[in-house]
Amino acid sequence: MAKEGTEIAEETEQMMDQKEPDNPVCAVIDSKEMRAVVLTGFGGLNKLKVTKKPMPEPQEGEVKIRVKACGLNFLDLMVRQGNIDNPPKTPLVPGFECSGIVESVGENTKGFEIGDRVMAFVNYSAWAEVVCTPLDFVHKIPDDMTFPEAAAFSMNFVAAYMMLFEVANLREGMSVLVHSAGGAVGQAVSQLCSTVPNVTVFGTASPFKHEAIKHSVTHLFDRNVDYVPEVKKISPDGVDIVLDCLCGENTGKGLTLLKPMGTYILYGSSNMVTGETKSFFSFAKSWWQVEKVNPIKLYEENKVIAGFSLLNLLFKQGGCNQVKTAVQKLLSLYDQKKIKPVVDSLWALEEVKEAMQRIHDRGNIGKLILDVEKSPTPLMANDSTETSEAGEEEEEQEGDNDNKERMPFIQ
Amino acid sequence: MAKEGTEIAEETEQMMDQKEPDNPVCAVIDSKEMRAVVLTGFGGLNKLKVTKKPMPEPQEGEVKIRVKACGLNFLDLMVRQGNIDNPPKTPLVPGFECSGIVESVGENTKGFEIGDRVMAFVNYSAWAEVVCTPLDFVHKIPDDMTFPEAAAFSMNFVAAYMMLFEVANLREGMSVLVHSAGGAVGQAVSQLCSTVPNVTVFGTASPFKHEAIKHSVTHLFDRNVDYVPEVKKISPDGVDIVLDCLCGENTGKGLTLLKPMGTYILYGSSNMVTGETKSFFSFAKSWWQVEKVNPIKLYEENKVIAGFSLLNLLFKQGGCNQVKTAVQKLLSLYDQKKIKPVVDSLWALEEVKEAMQRIHDRGNIGKLILDVEKSPTPLMANDSTETSEAGEEEEEQEGDNDNKERMPFIQ
Repeated sequence: MAKEGTEIAEETEQMMDQKEPDNPVCAVIDSKEMRAVVLTGFGGLNKLKVTKKPMPEPQEGEVKIRVKACGLNFLDLMVRQGNIDNPPKTPLVPGFECSGIVESVGENTKGFEIGDRVMAFVNYSAWAEVVCTPLDFVHKIPDDMTFPEAAAFSMNFVAAYMMLFEVANLREGMSVLVHSAGGAVGQAVSQLCSTVPNVTVFGTASPFKHEAIKHSVTHLFDRNVDYVPEVKKISPDGVDIVLDCLCGENTGKGLTLLKPMGTYILYGSSNMVTGETKSFFSFAKSWWQVEKVNPIKLYEENKVIAGFSLLNLLFKQGGCNQVKTAVQKLLSLYDQKKIKPVVDSLWALEEVKEAMQRIHDRGNIGKLILDVEKSPTPLMANDSTETSEAGEEEEEQEGDNDNKERMPFIQ
Repeated sequence: MAKEGTEIAEETEQMMDQKEPDNPVCAVIDSKEMRAVVLTGFGGLNKLKVTKKPMPEPQEGEVKIRVKACGLNFLDLMVRQGNIDNPPKTPLVPGFECSGIVESVGENTKGFEIGDRVMAFVNYSAWAEVVCTPLDFVHKIPDDMTFPEAAAFSMNFVAAYMMLFEVANLREGMSVLVHSAGGAVGQAVSQLCSTVPNVTVFGTASPFKHEAIKHSVTHLFDRNVDYVPEVKKISPDGVDIVLDCLCGENTGKGLTLLKPMGTYILYGSSNMVTGETKSFFSFAKSWWQVEKVNPIKLYEENKVIAGFSLLNLLFKQGGCNQVKTAVQKLLSLYDQKKIKPVVDSLWALEEVKEAMQRIHDRGNIGKLILDVEKSPTPLMANDSTETSEAGEEEEEQEGDNDNKERMPFIQ
């Protein structure tokens, strides 16, 4: 059953940890503590609460950031559900990206000074008032970039940039297929494609978003119809680059749509998990259902298949320098006003449930941001409540996977 | 048993079709006929002979070329054995590349004039005195490029270029692993890598070639030892690009050696067929033995796997324009004296058996060329008879696959 917005709002007012009733919600009085979103266990929205945590202090090589804005990604929903490979232990503070101001630095932390405006990648713990993270994950931002823009910039634009220009080698005259074209990655992909002459972007999105994003996507398709014949009607030879955040049967479809010398990139697997809660087995089952690829077939067909996980690159594979190079190139494009992150809406930490519901319901166009200094009153940059397809409270959807939304892994 | 060079030479003197004893071997008297190498059926060297064929005339859109030099590739040995997918019917004239002078053009064949010096891709039939091929496959060559250089240039440099710069996106500071580093593709790869600052080339080659090619390869390994630990000793993180012409277990090895964001490219499958004659089943068996790749594993590991077949791109997939772009860029590098095809040796058409034996025995450093105007007396640019590992006549090796040579699909 759908819950009304007011009902959810009432719930979130109760979200603050009741054990600490004397601490005001929106002010930092005790510098030994800070507010943070905490995931108490894997599951539904009710596993999230805002509570006080000990103030972190920077270790050697770390930067301490007074957080202004945090990015919310589809991946955060997957983390909440525990539907990721090797999930960490709960309780934990979610979040992989934020922006803010450098408050202090640890020993041997060169290159940053107190007061620097920065954006940062964080291996969990971004959704807090204060974050400490190694300097390799921190990047200074331009004076004219707002903190919400910066938090919307890091993961999505870096992922889109590295996929298009480093994995797939996007060049003049090529064509790109991207799913969830209205999402944050989709919008980053569209903008980056527009920096290269004569690039055709095919995109899928919910119909209610088409009007809002039609300027950024050459050919838009309803996400509920099969995109393969739609693309082939326009481009019988297929496309040069397929960016797939869905996985499952879409892997085969994507490979089919590739032109010779084309590149398919899997950067998410949301079909495996959307709407499925706490089910390791459903994940494992889907894993094996993905069509495996014979390298000799790639040889015969002159095709490229790739996978891209920015978080694995950053936090498991030592890819900081590669990411740093991408960030520099992206900031140069930002300075030239060729790209600009699209912020869908701002939410207080206490509104994280509504924000997650909105991303689950695919209501967003662009990025959802947790605004750490915001009071819990929704401010929608683009209210799509009336046209959104799903209004149900997610907790009640377990086991009902019909008509589930397909969302990007990193949005 | 090994046959002496003189024995083979005596055989080749008998190669001319005995049905036409009155026609001199090396002169074109009757303009209605031309000399060509003919493969009479799939099998060993004895299936090759030089004979007269009707003079071809250019159809609409075709260029008629008086051939000066033809390239010999490992692929030609596979064709001879019938060890390719969907082999054509015999008798046929082998050969996929040549250089020469435009003798005439068909109707609607713009851009070429009689007397133009050209190189061309041909879908079989290159090993002849005259070739007709569609203009899309023909490229003008610089005045200072010799015909043997041009014939050595087309397939190998285009393949190396497209793999390095279009599939794999080679950039400053990267590392590349290439097998058969002394072969024609290997030499093209090394030269192209040297056009990018600070690229490390790891190569495998027979030890006797090391001295000759050490200037072009950063780290050379004996092709008879396992290269994986050797590469890891020098670069524990692995390499950015693996070019594999071997297939089989090397696919898994190559993927293992890749750094995150690295690209593995399969461009040949010589392990499947070298030394195995006319065995479709051994081919099919090997096909299924190749490790298939789960896209989700690529996602987790941030890896790219690709296949590249220049001939399929050209003749089955309409990739002429992509190839044309690559040729233009390569000719510009040639003009700047940054690359120069390495010609191993020149052979008369009647010496095609010795030439094939040399490529089979891995005696070559760089490209073997059939010089159409040459008389049947071997002129070795680099004679390595004494150090070559294998001297046996190939016909007698059937069923004996121990110590077989590993050769690139396109060399």
